[in-house]
Amino acid sequence: FFPEMAASLWKNLFQITKERILQQRRAPLYNVAHGYEEELIKKKLQQFAGGSISLSKEDNGVRLLTLNNPKLMNAVTGTMMVELQERVTELENWKDGKGLIIYGAGNTFCSGSDLNAVKAISNSQAKFWLQNLFCRLPLITVALIQGKAFGGGAEITTACDFRLMTPGSEIRFVHKHMGLVPGWGGAARLVRIVGSGAALRLLSGAMRVDPERALHLGLSEETLSSSDETRALEEARAWLSQYTEGPASVIRAMKKVVTAGRELPLEAALRTEKDIFGTVWGGPANLQALARGPKHK
Amino acid sequence: FFPEMAASLWKNLFQITKERILQQRRAPLYNVAHGYEEELIKKKLQQFAGGSISLSKEDNGVRLLTLNNPKLMNAVTGTMMVELQERVTELENWKDGKGLIIYGAGNTFCSGSDLNAVKAISNSQAKFWLQNLFCRLPLITVALIQGKAFGGGAEITTACDFRLMTPGSEIRFVHKHMGLVPGWGGAARLVRIVGSGAALRLLSGAMRVDPERALHLGLSEETLSSSDETRALEEARAWLSQYTEGPASVIRAMKKVVTAGRELPLEAALRTEKDIFGTVWGGPANLQALARGPKHK
Amino acid sequence: FFPEMAASLWKNLFQITKERILQQRRAPLYNVAHGYEEELIKKKLQQFAGGSISLSKEDNGVRLLTLNNPKLMNAVTGTMMVELQERVTELENWKDGKGLIIYGAGNTFCSGSDLNAVKAISNSQAKFWLQNLFCRLPLITVALIQGKAFGGGAEITTACDFRLMTPGSEIRFVHKHMGLVPGWGGAARLVRIVGSGAALRLLSGAMRVDPERALHLGLSEETLSSSDETRALEEARAWLSQYTEGPASVIRAMKKVVTAGRELPLEAALRTEKDIFGTVWGGPANLQALARGPKHK
Repeated sequence: FFPEMAASLWKNLFQITKERILQQRRAPLYNVAHGYEEELIKKKLQQFAGGSISLSKEDNGVRLLTLNNPKLMNAVTGTMMVELQERVTELENWKDGKGLIIYGAGNTFCSGSDLNAVKAISNSQAKFWLQNLFCRLPLITVALIQGKAFGGGAEITTACDFRLMTPGSEIRFVHKHMGLVPGWGGAARLVRIVGSGAALRLLSGAMRVDPERALHLGLSEETLSSSDETRALEEARAWLSQYTEGPASVIRAMKKVVTAGRELPLEAALRTEKDIFGTVWGGPANLQALARGPKHK
Repeated sequence: FFPEMAASLWKNLFQITKERILQQRRAPLYNVAHGYEEELIKKKLQQFAGGSISLSKEDNGVRLLTLNNPKLMNAVTGTMMVELQERVTELENWKDGKGLIIYGAGNTFCSGSDLNAVKAISNSQAKFWLQNLFCRLPLITVALIQGKAFGGGAEITTACDFRLMTPGSEIRFVHKHMGLVPGWGGAARLVRIVGSGAALRLLSGAMRVDPERALHLGLSEETLSSSDETRALEEARAWLSQYTEGPASVIRAMKKVVTAGRELPLEAALRTEKDIFGTVWGGPANLQALARGPKHK
Repeated sequence: FFPEMAASLWKNLFQITKERILQQRRAPLYNVAHGYEEELIKKKLQQFAGGSISLSKEDNGVRLLTLNNPKLMNAVTGTMMVELQERVTELENWKDGKGLIIYGAGNTFCSGSDLNAVKAISNSQAKFWLQNLFCRLPLITVALIQGKAFGGGAEITTACDFRLMTPGSEIRFVHKHMGLVPGWGGAARLVRIVGSGAALRLLSGAMRVDPERALHLGLSEETLSSSDETRALEEARAWLSQYTEGPASVIRAMKKVVTAGRELPLEAALRTEKDIFGTVWGGPANLQALARGPKHK
């Protein structure tokens, strides 16, 4: 009976093996810890208290997320990590959302994270999860950089779609001076934004990047005209509104096709793009547009 | 007998499983529908008639492909899709081919595709196939953009190796205004041409891209001096001839190594490059060059 | 007993298959030939003698590697390939190393490789191995380009992290004129440095790239002020020292995170970055920095 059994086994095993492997390759990049593990991580993180994360009310599909720990240049503490995770989950469930502006209280962006808190969770999956916090959002995200974005703070800016800098502000990957390298995805993402040569220069040289240099490297989209918080926020909102105007379903789909294009190999990106196209095709925004007739001739 | 059988089974199964999985990973990106399915798709598409696709006679290894439906700004109808597929197959079989210039009749490029025709075939693999129509050609392809390249027309330009724009012309991903996102690969390819930040801006802002901006973004290679069709075609031919001069076998291999470099992960690209090198190494062009002695000292 | 056996077999086989496949995916990119095969390749290569490779003594974590065959514009002969392999192995074992400058004797970089030597080993894995010679080093590598970097010499420059050019120097992928395409990874790497459009232009046009054009394309980091060898080397050392200053463990880790960012898909790059972070976290350089207190406020 050997051959038949082998054939049958083979067929089943191959099918299952193939599916498992393909599943792994298709597994969502931005998995989060669940249940028991998540509770454990939270408990550990809450031992490192201080600061807070606040989220503005909705304004035309755009919200502001504030890193709020100005005494320590908005260093992200353990409790802030927990709050960040909660705010991002809230944003994920906000179906009308289109954009997010991330900025720091007290006219500076962020000096990194509380390394003791990072240490407490370094054996878990949480590190990987924090790497991807903002990236899993179907929102167009902007880092509004006033003052300094240092170390982990510089890494957070690379997890946003866009960076806007105020005059006199500065991005600096100071990891080398701390005897460290990026660990939150800052290197992998920086390479995708400025290329690997410039990334190696910024990281291994711990180079100071002012707004002019950032513009030149493509690390920043624009230098705002004011470093006053209220006016800078106004400018950032106006800038972002160019890209968030329109139905949420379409803007979110646009973010998704670009994310797929950036993060997936070409073949997978093409398939994903086709699938995302299918989610808006024949949808309400598409039908309205067809009824209205072509806007551009 | 269990252990031996298990070992034997294991060996066979692992070998087969591995080969199958590697085969899948090596499977050509640009598969097309075959036989019965293809005939079905053609029938569906032919219900949406209008316009035509023409292909010039050979001229020094370079041909011109014209999108010809000027009444609708060269929108691609169902019958044009069928003709495109046929012309591209013809070009694939043209072993002396080196270059292709794609342009639109009536001084404009293309306003996209007939969405009713797209709808008719949206459940098949054809969509995916059309995404890659020009990309599977072993020719250096240039989109000559006069007038407007809108929506699907803008996407077609991203499937070419190069874009040349005439004065006053315009590329615009107007999908957002139609309640849509790209679905023909325009997003995935745009990210690879201009980076993900610029791609997100062009797509989610439906930004107008004039020749100057396109040059700055790297979306266009050059702005031609004339918008007159005859002169623009002359200029485009002259520009392309810099890159197509030489034996077809070498130019085609060059296109292939660059395509591999762009579309494959580094390791696969390196292996492919080595293989493609092997196809020209010791070939007639190589032997002639060796006999002639070094051209550059 | 079929179901239990199938289940048990399945479990074992799937586990093993999965591990094997993941191992392959994790397998070091820069494998080298070993033992018997390596000896065989060496013997073949040593039939094509001439020139030498020299390596300077250590100077502050940086060494100079010289391609030394000036009569043939530093063409890499068979014996030079063997020496290169030995020098690179030596550099791999140099645990305090941070940087490497590669240059050519006699005021010119390199005109490629001895094609007869390449031919002799073209059936082995050695070709693939030579493609990656410099890339497997955990050092920041700079190609100092004086005179001409042609063909395989141009390819070697793309395997370095950075390129510095002296006035009047020139990079040129002359492969087309030899009836060839790159085969040492030059195409795959060039695409990653300058984008696929520019890569296709440089390769299919065999375009001359002078220092100004190289800077503009991002193919060179800087044009040095002098083409005198001694002064150019001084300038190159000073330039590189900006990026190699600091503990070797940190600089080497920085090189590794950027390499991972460049060569791996995003998800794998993020995991690798997290792992590399773990190698410096809590290490001597990190502890010293913490004891010293923050350098940047």
